Amino acid sequence: MGRVKRDAEGAVPPVPTMADVARAAQVSVMTVSRVLRGAMYVDEGTGEKVKAAAAKLGYVPNRLAGSLSSRSTAIVAAIVPTIANSLFADTVQGLSDELGRRGIQLMLGCSAYDPELENSLISTTVSWRPAGIVAVPVRENRAELALLPARGVPVIEVWDIDSKPVDACVGYSNFQAAYAMTRHLHEQGYRRIAFVRSSRTGDIRTANRSRGYATAVEEFELAPGLHFEIDYPLATSGGVIAMRWLLERKLGLDAVFFSNDIVAIGALYECRRRRIAVPRNLAIAGFGDFDEASVCVPALTTVRVPRYEIGRRAAEMLVARLDGKSTRSRRVDLGFELVRRESA
Amino acid sequence: MGRVKRDAEGAVPPVPTMADVARAAQVSVMTVSRVLRGAMYVDEGTGEKVKAAAAKLGYVPNRLAGSLSSRSTAIVAAIVPTIANSLFADTVQGLSDELGRRGIQLMLGCSAYDPELENSLISTTVSWRPAGIVAVPVRENRAELALLPARGVPVIEVWDIDSKPVDACVGYSNFQAAYAMTRHLHEQGYRRIAFVRSSRTGDIRTANRSRGYATAVEEFELAPGLHFEIDYPLATSGGVIAMRWLLERKLGLDAVFFSNDIVAIGALYECRRRRIAVPRNLAIAGFGDFDEASVCVPALTTVRVPRYEIGRRAAEMLVARLDGKSTRSRRVDLGFELVRRESA
Repeated sequence: MGRVKRDAEGAVPPVPTMADVARAAQVSVMTVSRVLRGAMYVDEGTGEKVKAAAAKLGYVPNRLAGSLSSRSTAIVAAIVPTIANSLFADTVQGLSDELGRRGIQLMLGCSAYDPELENSLISTTVSWRPAGIVAVPVRENRAELALLPARGVPVIEVWDIDSKPVDACVGYSNFQAAYAMTRHLHEQGYRRIAFVRSSRTGDIRTANRSRGYATAVEEFELAPGLHFEIDYPLATSGGVIAMRWLLERKLGLDAVFFSNDIVAIGALYECRRRRIAVPRNLAIAGFGDFDEASVCVPALTTVRVPRYEIGRRAAEMLVARLDGKSTRSRRVDLGFELVRRESA
Repeated sequence: MGRVKRDAEGAVPPVPTMADVARAAQVSVMTVSRVLRGAMYVDEGTGEKVKAAAAKLGYVPNRLAGSLSSRSTAIVAAIVPTIANSLFADTVQGLSDELGRRGIQLMLGCSAYDPELENSLISTTVSWRPAGIVAVPVRENRAELALLPARGVPVIEVWDIDSKPVDACVGYSNFQAAYAMTRHLHEQGYRRIAFVRSSRTGDIRTANRSRGYATAVEEFELAPGLHFEIDYPLATSGGVIAMRWLLERKLGLDAVFFSNDIVAIGALYECRRRRIAVPRNLAIAGFGDFDEASVCVPALTTVRVPRYEIGRRAAEMLVARLDGKSTRSRRVDLGFELVRRESA
């Protein structure tokens, strides 16, 4: 947790200060400050002189100083499990695009699905006095996050809306989405439907999908005991591993519902290598509706979730809050969509 | 570019200050500051009292104040075209992991391949006085970035090392990598080899791959006029569009070298739908060695580039520089690897 010091050799780095601009424009520092903040009541000639001097020197206002004196910052922090797969990367992109349009900088922290690292990221981040935090929390227990609203830091939890938010949340119901897919598979005539998730993450969202699947299994009296947590990475190659694991056990499945499209696509490859016809011999469904789901062979039946829009809306909600607008709802449901294609 | 103000209704947000801690511990603010900075010469009882009061109040040191007075900040900024595909997401992840281990926060900006947006991001970011900038620049002209080193902000350019860096760079030669793949295709007996890139990005890295391909085409006297810039998104569905475009033109190709694996995988799907046997009727090669390249059918021949390691090394180089260590090289070549699989 060390702090970074600049190379001491150069003493003070040659960054022009407001005083340098004042000297060059032959005005007071206060005048420079007023002009560069866009204050009224500065005569035009003086304004031009200051702006010309600032441009010539390459002066950049120091936002650290600004944010300290006004107790406001133009940083929003995002804390996500990972961006090394396109699920959360799209959400961070939506957040970045919307904040960028408003000149707000995004600070990023990745928890790697580790609750302790998540807590440590939250406290490091808060010491920067961010204008707000957008989080994809790892576990149901979010004690560290829950402390922030009372301390004046708005928190928008994204992706899952099944749990009560510590402040506000935007996303969709993972429970409902997994329930809807399982019901769809039942309607297609499948009875021995496996639900497969990776044992490596154990996050809230996947847990809620498991509950949605289990509820449908009970309600429609589907074959029990087919919920599997398998050790594989959240990647296409992980889907190959998961499919091999299932096939070795000769479970007599007629459908497999993977909690992630990328993994389902890996399973499709393994079926192809083993000449298992999908969906005739085995139906396969995914979750997420990645770009590839619509073009893979066979095209993947999946659940579309608003990955990018979740990030964009989180930014909007945060900005509305910071502007002092009352947010109509603390729980924004953007919904999901069942996408029926060829694989199930 | 507006600044965010906090909700004014609550006047001062209820964030505990150093003065609150001092009052609770019945000591001076200076003593609190000394204890929390870990200064010596504070008697143990007083130290415990201050720490207990700080913990009880939930006091968090304000890093903005700290960084302002010491002229050092624990922020590093990354400016990349996009993270919504796993190419740069992996690099940002490597950067985030390595900086995170050292308690340095990552600030992220996405340029969307737009040079103007990139410049605007650079100047916004610099106003936060970051300890350094890691950039994947869009174009060869990096005028804005080139100003930073003289102003005391170290710049590490990542991914491409073919251009002279404005400060330092880490990556691999895109020119050499594309040359090596084209030579490999020539060695496999292919003569009518197309090179395909998206017209939507036009970045330095792809331009250098084009040059590497063109050099090999000339050197090995391959069929000319087969370099194509096609309008498609950098996604699997983009590969389907690109492959249809090529097939419609009946170019008599025997191999296609795509500048991106994701796109090559889309092309494989289109070939499968049209029953074009790969590589017997048409060879396909990619670039990047994404996870899926090793498991897709047929497995993809591609160029492996150190996506994650580039980010990790950039962080290391920056930290070494900030610690005042002289960096041995300003141009770090992490190399690439030709990966021969089934598709070409």
